[in-house]
Amino acid sequence: GENALLELAKAAHSGMTTEEFEQIVKDWITTAKHPTTGKLFTEMAYQPMLELLDYLRANGFKTFIVSGGGVEFMRPWAEDVYGIPPEQVVGSSGRLKYEYRDGKPVIVKQPTLTHFNDNVGKPVSIQNHIGRRPIFAAGNSDGDFEMLEWTTAGAGPRFAMFVHHDDAEREWAYDRESKIGTLAKGLDEAPLRGWTIVSIKNDWITIFP
Amino acid sequence: GENALLELAKAAHSGMTTEEFEQIVKDWITTAKHPTTGKLFTEMAYQPMLELLDYLRANGFKTFIVSGGGVEFMRPWAEDVYGIPPEQVVGSSGRLKYEYRDGKPVIVKQPTLTHFNDNVGKPVSIQNHIGRRPIFAAGNSDGDFEMLEWTTAGAGPRFAMFVHHDDAEREWAYDRESKIGTLAKGLDEAPLRGWTIVSIKNDWITIFP
Repeated sequence: GENALLELAKAAHSGMTTEEFEQIVKDWITTAKHPTTGKLFTEMAYQPMLELLDYLRANGFKTFIVSGGGVEFMRPWAEDVYGIPPEQVVGSSGRLKYEYRDGKPVIVKQPTLTHFNDNVGKPVSIQNHIGRRPIFAAGNSDGDFEMLEWTTAGAGPRFAMFVHHDDAEREWAYDRESKIGTLAKGLDEAPLRGWTIVSIKNDWITIFP
Repeated sequence: GENALLELAKAAHSGMTTEEFEQIVKDWITTAKHPTTGKLFTEMAYQPMLELLDYLRANGFKTFIVSGGGVEFMRPWAEDVYGIPPEQVVGSSGRLKYEYRDGKPVIVKQPTLTHFNDNVGKPVSIQNHIGRRPIFAAGNSDGDFEMLEWTTAGAGPRFAMFVHHDDAEREWAYDRESKIGTLAKGLDEAPLRGWTIVSIKNDWITIFP
């Protein structure tokens, strides 16, 4: 499952300094293309979500990414693509070790995964990194369920939404039966909890920038 | 030592929700006074450091606290006292658990200390939370040594400073022989590394606001 994949990735990059890893990610992201769309991965951010981030920031919100992905993998490009600086990116993380190489201090990635940022891991990392409860949260799978639940359990106005991947023609269609990015509990519970479900097929005119 | 004290504090507060703990800290901090100065703890922030934070922010810096103290203890008052919001406070931290009480989600403090934010723990938490190397760092004990070292090992202009508590009359005087807040390696190495040592006695006209 995703956990095993993450463990594998951690093992493969362990022993590397954080700066070496950052450079590899930066080099890769400038050329890596999606196998079916042929677009750069960085061109596959969702246009309506970029507009939503801009809209929130223009109205005094501070925006964060809270992803299941490795935090060191996302930070090198999140600012260019989403306008979100490294310190506002929260993700899965592994043990780091401060040591010296050639007399200079380095921070070295270790094989141990210390935080898997999915499900209950999301509200926990929000508390650890951000230290206050979000007012607004958006997700696209059941891995975001607890984050939306935690967000909307706070006092005062709150907003929670799932993006539903239901457009096989222009993007992808998957939800209940998918092994990756499953969205089942979210579809069942959203209407009962007053959360919004956004249909890519029906609600988005443009998908990619 | 400090580690044992932190473990004790963690154990005492475990089982409490993060919101309950925050309320206790907020209540305590509005009335708690230092036993010898008689001032509120929140009135004992250093005036020159507050001015430095303002000056840095006025010049485009984003300011963070990176402290050995418990992050959940500092966040409730750091914004009022230092102008630093919760998400820019990094500290020691314990395990958190997402669970339900009376049908509502809560985050509950667990007894396990997961990160002790001192010495090598500081550059590691800077990488984890902030994800980029500081340009400017200030400390006041050898527990800050690695943070200053990491800061100044980056390319381009860097600034590192230790505040030296050497004013027995107006504040306190301690350094090499002190069991808490020891500053020995820092005093030896700062001149060799081009780091600034600030003498409270000689350099600060006003200490407290």
